[in-house]
Amino acid sequence: MTTDLVAALDIGGTKIAGALVDDTGAVRERFQVPTPAREGGDSVLAAVTAVLDRLVAADGWSAVRGLGIGSAGPVDARSGTVSPVNIPGWRGYPLVSGARRTVGDRLPVALVGDGAAIAAGEHWCGAARGVDNALCMVVSTGVGGGLVLDGRLRTGPSGNAGHIGHICVELDGDTCPCGGRGCVEGIASGTAIARWAGERGLLAPDGGPPTAAHVAAAAGDGEPVATAAFRRAARALAAGIAATATLVELDVVVVGGGVAHAGDVLFAPLTTALGEYAALPYVRGLPVRPALLGADAGLVGAAAAVRRSPGGD
Amino acid sequence: MTTDLVAALDIGGTKIAGALVDDTGAVRERFQVPTPAREGGDSVLAAVTAVLDRLVAADGWSAVRGLGIGSAGPVDARSGTVSPVNIPGWRGYPLVSGARRTVGDRLPVALVGDGAAIAAGEHWCGAARGVDNALCMVVSTGVGGGLVLDGRLRTGPSGNAGHIGHICVELDGDTCPCGGRGCVEGIASGTAIARWAGERGLLAPDGGPPTAAHVAAAAGDGEPVATAAFRRAARALAAGIAATATLVELDVVVVGGGVAHAGDVLFAPLTTALGEYAALPYVRGLPVRPALLGADAGLVGAAAAVRRSPGGD
Repeated sequence: MTTDLVAALDIGGTKIAGALVDDTGAVRERFQVPTPAREGGDSVLAAVTAVLDRLVAADGWSAVRGLGIGSAGPVDARSGTVSPVNIPGWRGYPLVSGARRTVGDRLPVALVGDGAAIAAGEHWCGAARGVDNALCMVVSTGVGGGLVLDGRLRTGPSGNAGHIGHICVELDGDTCPCGGRGCVEGIASGTAIARWAGERGLLAPDGGPPTAAHVAAAAGDGEPVATAAFRRAARALAAGIAATATLVELDVVVVGGGVAHAGDVLFAPLTTALGEYAALPYVRGLPVRPALLGADAGLVGAAAAVRRSPGGD
Repeated sequence: MTTDLVAALDIGGTKIAGALVDDTGAVRERFQVPTPAREGGDSVLAAVTAVLDRLVAADGWSAVRGLGIGSAGPVDARSGTVSPVNIPGWRGYPLVSGARRTVGDRLPVALVGDGAAIAAGEHWCGAARGVDNALCMVVSTGVGGGLVLDGRLRTGPSGNAGHIGHICVELDGDTCPCGGRGCVEGIASGTAIARWAGERGLLAPDGGPPTAAHVAAAAGDGEPVATAAFRRAARALAAGIAATATLVELDVVVVGGGVAHAGDVLFAPLTTALGEYAALPYVRGLPVRPALLGADAGLVGAAAAVRRSPGGD
């Protein structure tokens, strides 16, 4: 009954989740702890270990064939280390060896960035299933993504490929916490949408600064500042998507994450803006689909990453 | 002596070249005619046929194992058609079937965009030899490129992948003849460099509008407008290169073409600008090398494309 399971970790700046995932992508066991993101690196690893301890003690652990780890990036799959922008205590932190202290040396372990994990998951059993060439994105607090090329997850040597949030779409744009300038994330993330609208006078219902969800609700009602905030974000996303399609050729783009839950408020201006930036014949008319995997997308994706890695399936 | 040859065509808006290329990348026979780019599509094919006729009549034709075609893009490798921006008479033009009327049905034929051809050539026997992940670019009248990923040419399904000249780096930039906006080519091509400097008062030695070579010479002498023109081009190239590396992960970037012959006038500001846009750990410090293949790069690359295609080697 549990002859083909993998363990999965989804590590972000807010929470650390773990699960056992079966060969259909179903989550069998699931544990979660808050990420102690402001504490030292070893405290963050202790939280990871607490989740892994629960998995090792769970029914079915003896049938587990690998451990997939999707982590906030950047990661370095070659050295097994991670340096998540939103977990300052982890810089070049040896996450894989830390995890092996709990799971042992026998299991294949795959480490990928969270964007690559999402792409692996949507390709395995979500909106990119059966597609050879896909960009799968998350538009939420930040903007991330991963690539499927020629029917396979393209992680790149370090595990970070597809990181569309940090490509430049404005040569003279604002500097970005990543060190770059004019990045997609700085214009199109939920954080950026809320800040831009707030700076132009939009308020939350309680009179305070708005969240992206407030801006989405206002845009749904036709409020002009909110509508402009989503149009601006959609143009940055479209320029980034068009650049990706121009560079690698895509069959489909999948967009998930909190901001994507705004539905037509995002997808309508995104489709319009793609017409502005995706003009070459082999890029024009690129289909954009909402993501199908929900809150467990990172776990299912981490499981997919180890199942599909050379040491996995 | 001629047991392993392929035929190659390099089709651009100015010239149509053909050759037989041996298994070391050496060009054994070479013929060239001007492209009748302002004439009808069948006249352009007649020029292609004239080159192929010379190849078929050449010593060694009986040993030819395939035909590689690198064409100005966009191309559509699936349908064997091409629609080069700078050859208006060819729109969805059946180039592969046209070539087969001369070379027959027995040979494998590979059609790729000229950027992909350059990448195939530099990877086979140029500056990207032995590299797993490379972007190879041409900066000349236009800006093109191709990708090597995981040790193999990534053409994409239609043969156009790597077309870095037409990714957006300025959301509100000028509209581009491709139909997009703010494209790298519109800022960084030789054409764009010459126009930008000319609009700001730079003159050719004869008092007329400058070419990119004039601007390069003036920049080499420290002339401020010319220096600024190259700095602006270098920033657009750097943003595009950084975007590509962020999306697919690269080990090296190879830059060739007429503008690259300016040497340090281009490469020095390009290296500086990469520091501004390529900031994430897995992208930082990306090596940029001059191309090694010269005027025959397109022919060697077209030969490489058919040697490395599933129907080729």
